[in-house]
Amino acid sequence: MIVVGELINASRKAIGEAILNQDVAAIQKVAKDQEEAGANYIDVNAGIFVEEEGDYLKWLVETVQEVVDVPCAIDSPSYQAIEGALKVHKGDAPPMINSISLEKERYEALLPILAGTDLKVVALCMSDEGMPETTKERLDIAEKLINGLTGVGVKLDNIFVDPLVQPVSTNAEFGMEFINAVEAINKEFKGVHTMCGLSNISFGLPNRKFLNQTFAVMAIAKGLDGLIINPLDKKMMANMIAAESLAGRDNYCGNYLKAHRAGKFDL
Amino acid sequence: MIVVGELINASRKAIGEAILNQDVAAIQKVAKDQEEAGANYIDVNAGIFVEEEGDYLKWLVETVQEVVDVPCAIDSPSYQAIEGALKVHKGDAPPMINSISLEKERYEALLPILAGTDLKVVALCMSDEGMPETTKERLDIAEKLINGLTGVGVKLDNIFVDPLVQPVSTNAEFGMEFINAVEAINKEFKGVHTMCGLSNISFGLPNRKFLNQTFAVMAIAKGLDGLIINPLDKKMMANMIAAESLAGRDNYCGNYLKAHRAGKFDL
Repeated sequence: MIVVGELINASRKAIGEAILNQDVAAIQKVAKDQEEAGANYIDVNAGIFVEEEGDYLKWLVETVQEVVDVPCAIDSPSYQAIEGALKVHKGDAPPMINSISLEKERYEALLPILAGTDLKVVALCMSDEGMPETTKERLDIAEKLINGLTGVGVKLDNIFVDPLVQPVSTNAEFGMEFINAVEAINKEFKGVHTMCGLSNISFGLPNRKFLNQTFAVMAIAKGLDGLIINPLDKKMMANMIAAESLAGRDNYCGNYLKAHRAGKFDL
Repeated sequence: MIVVGELINASRKAIGEAILNQDVAAIQKVAKDQEEAGANYIDVNAGIFVEEEGDYLKWLVETVQEVVDVPCAIDSPSYQAIEGALKVHKGDAPPMINSISLEKERYEALLPILAGTDLKVVALCMSDEGMPETTKERLDIAEKLINGLTGVGVKLDNIFVDPLVQPVSTNAEFGMEFINAVEAINKEFKGVHTMCGLSNISFGLPNRKFLNQTFAVMAIAKGLDGLIINPLDKKMMANMIAAESLAGRDNYCGNYLKAHRAGKFDL
């Protein structure tokens, strides 16, 4: 499982303030905590600042990279902000671009940046026609994104398709349409990854954390192998580790037993 | 979701003793508690007593039915014991036979008992060749069982195929082979149900309850709609209710919200 730690997002109050105050220690603590908890990428997002987004995003990448070894997930809809952040990102492990979509402007601006590189990329199933609702709509967008990306030399293994979670409170079918899309994408495009954030699924309902944790397990059963989550959520991480073992992705349950010995199921 | 409450099983020490002592109050308490917690069937099993199994099973059915309104799941590999218990089972709602399998003797003895009835039946994917390991082996046995049962007039809606859970500690693939069988059976035989007990999945591993709870969610994501469980396990029931809502089986999340108001997620 690829875990993207989602906490360094300016829309969270403490992070927004830390960015405004250029509080290096605060940002670095959240970065280190996430790496320690198992994050494979540290997401950085300064989207709320619009005008200053580019500068803040660069600062976040530099600040985070001073203290962690894992690469960043550069989280912005703006290709200019992404391009700037990429220039300051260092180290051997390529960062993740979060995200390209089929929205024309974003797609056309980001494709050349990704062409021929070894960058990881989240391919978000969204187009100018809006957000997909059915499995088929997701699959159609995924196919176009995958073909476009592989067409400019991006390896399947570097693509993380995000079929886009929508709230089950809006439509009872939205959960299944999403996880069926995960399954269909994995089947149609062998070697590609699927990834998502979860919180939309529980929008408008009580016990949101519990619903998100449960939905993660369901998506893993259908083949999901990437999560954009809070890695400090111990219950979420425990669910993920158990579900991966149960899904046959953990030979001899080695990772599960290691997590058990580390007390990760003592919740 | 069809919940079969599994607690009245003579292999559990307290139940075995209650049967030996003909302790009506003890058995009735466990029956009532399970009904109250949401069981749709109360499983009764006196298998450890071999010689006296038939008599004890009848006594269990009578004792349980004095205090609950839901029917029993008559749990025995012996057709004589099942036949005896059926004779004393009363009420309009047909009991569940747990279980028929493709083992020749059991199959041939139980088929005439089920023929033309409205009994519910668990169709266990086991044959004289042993326990299936792959999805395909399960599907082959399921097909023969379903054809045999429908051939003598049992409705698809009365059949609960149990693809037979095997421990993931033995083979990393056993979890996926099972849940893929659930999905395949639901796809091939529209209208049939799938059901299982869970505890085998975690055999040999620590935190068994947590693994069983997690695996239930994964199986529901693949279409499972029956569980043989301890309905007093609040975490299991909470997982099940949440997973069903997320799987689109709960319009407007009505059941989920009702469970929330009843405090079922305050764990």
